[in-house]
Amino acid sequence: MSPSNTSVKLVKLVSSGAPTLANFKVESIGVPSKASLQSDQILVRTLYLSADPYMRGRLSGSQDSYVDSFVAGKPIIGLGVGVIEASTSSEFKEGDVVTGDQFLWEAKFVSGVRGFIKIPASGIAPANYLGVLGMPSFTAYVGVVTLAQAKAGETILISAASGAVGQVAVQLAKARGLRVVGAAGSDDKVAFVKSLGADAAFNYKTCGDLNAAIRAVAPDGVDVYFDNVGGEFLDAALLNMNAFGRIAECGMISQYNATADTAYHIQNLIRIIPKRISIHGFIVSDYYAKPDYANFIAEVSAMLKEGKITYKLDEVVGLENAPQGLLDLFEGKNFGKRVIKVTDAQQRL
Amino acid sequence: MSPSNTSVKLVKLVSSGAPTLANFKVESIGVPSKASLQSDQILVRTLYLSADPYMRGRLSGSQDSYVDSFVAGKPIIGLGVGVIEASTSSEFKEGDVVTGDQFLWEAKFVSGVRGFIKIPASGIAPANYLGVLGMPSFTAYVGVVTLAQAKAGETILISAASGAVGQVAVQLAKARGLRVVGAAGSDDKVAFVKSLGADAAFNYKTCGDLNAAIRAVAPDGVDVYFDNVGGEFLDAALLNMNAFGRIAECGMISQYNATADTAYHIQNLIRIIPKRISIHGFIVSDYYAKPDYANFIAEVSAMLKEGKITYKLDEVVGLENAPQGLLDLFEGKNFGKRVIKVTDAQQRL
Repeated sequence: MSPSNTSVKLVKLVSSGAPTLANFKVESIGVPSKASLQSDQILVRTLYLSADPYMRGRLSGSQDSYVDSFVAGKPIIGLGVGVIEASTSSEFKEGDVVTGDQFLWEAKFVSGVRGFIKIPASGIAPANYLGVLGMPSFTAYVGVVTLAQAKAGETILISAASGAVGQVAVQLAKARGLRVVGAAGSDDKVAFVKSLGADAAFNYKTCGDLNAAIRAVAPDGVDVYFDNVGGEFLDAALLNMNAFGRIAECGMISQYNATADTAYHIQNLIRIIPKRISIHGFIVSDYYAKPDYANFIAEVSAMLKEGKITYKLDEVVGLENAPQGLLDLFEGKNFGKRVIKVTDAQQRL
Repeated sequence: MSPSNTSVKLVKLVSSGAPTLANFKVESIGVPSKASLQSDQILVRTLYLSADPYMRGRLSGSQDSYVDSFVAGKPIIGLGVGVIEASTSSEFKEGDVVTGDQFLWEAKFVSGVRGFIKIPASGIAPANYLGVLGMPSFTAYVGVVTLAQAKAGETILISAASGAVGQVAVQLAKARGLRVVGAAGSDDKVAFVKSLGADAAFNYKTCGDLNAAIRAVAPDGVDVYFDNVGGEFLDAALLNMNAFGRIAECGMISQYNATADTAYHIQNLIRIIPKRISIHGFIVSDYYAKPDYANFIAEVSAMLKEGKITYKLDEVVGLENAPQGLLDLFEGKNFGKRVIKVTDAQQRL
């Protein structure tokens, strides 16, 4: 890591098709000084940044997106963990470790305090706040517990089961006494999903007919489908849902880069009537202010202390590799929750 | 009406495409005698039979159907209202007016008592028990109240708004203080929907672009969509849903006669994630045993007594016309809830 600061900026929004490295620019920029802080500001040194599938919407500037789009010429912004190096706010002091969703993709940046929270000293490594105690993990909780109300004895199917959200969904469902079946995009990922406790899992890229593959792992049908992928897999899942099934509709990553020509159209939605299926589209940010969040922190913290939950981080080192680290997600090249390691906790710029 | 008995039987199940008159046979059969009753049986004279869209599933013999399919060589069976002419059951006596879902499509038939309930003497004309106090009306209640939890100030969009279910959905939503917009398949039906209190309505067959037509009547978006039709209309509705919108998925009649070649595939399902939309497939029979049913009877009975709800019956006279009366539903030729008038209350076979 050079002593100069680095910034990852958006060059232009993606109008159609897939984003490429050309949409990003990695720049050397100046290091902000403590003296430059205005009132109620913080100088943050970034430890880890989070690369997440939801960022696809922010890259396209769609009006429908539920978060602000990225802005051409400005840094990418998202979830991160960092250390306060200087503060003119009474909320934070030098040395505080913080997380939040207003991290610039820069090694060091100045910000207002909105969107940052202090992480209590607990001995848990900071990157975990982008992982097992972070947004994707809470997303799994909201889908499995709050919306699908998954119950012991039921069968849950989880797509992208080795991913940031899926791996926690697998473990939360297993801990609740469900039969857990999952799908992932490589044999290594399938083995990992099974190692988390899934009763069965398959490689959706090599299994052939998806409907038959789901039926093979869930011969008595699916009560809860936790959807991360949409498209053809969702259509096949619909064919396998039991009466009164619930679908937690978390994401449709197979469709995020689709164009009008390549988008998959759903054929089996009609099944939700005879089978009385409910489908719940959701965004995790709606649930932080609800009791579900405290319940999640309590449940997962306890599991973590008892060694009953594991979480796979997929770390890319260096801000200069962050654009490719994000793009990989849209092709399923990550294996676990992708984070970008920016600086060491001990490092100073 | 001839003094002989008549039976409408299924000739063969529909394997693909639309049912036709050739799937049915109208037969003269013998009149059952009181002496033929075994224990716990009733001899019923049919007053009215109900022709309903859900019967499409029973005609196809699909494994996925939520009710038993009709059986080749046996009478059609469904909802009806009739008079007990003889009974060997302690539950019913001669002269009782009954309703239920085990009515054979015969002018007079013998049955066990399961599936029949006695209608209290209240001065309400018997056909209403297939209408405003019947299954389609309760279906509207479950969709609007139980599942969509429609609230005052919200906008509800109702497709097939002049139909058996739609016309009650319009009135229940209006009584709750929603802005109500509807679609129907002829200018007469549109005028009828407006006469029920809808704030706006349009003819989906002549409006051109469905998305624009919905936007025109609901410029601030749709909070609740009560879907009776599926297909292209559902896809257009998805484009107009507000954040946290709910879709009560009651039926997809536009797709019931579709073949693999003609079935419409949904393009806009992905919208449910950024908009946090929930979709609830349902079947009304699941709700008769819940408190919702008593709430429905109480609410709609009160509205009826106060003249605050109207209901359009579309009556076809004569059992011999029942097959066409049913087939008409799949082409939108009915105007209101279709019933088949079989005999007069005073009539004797």
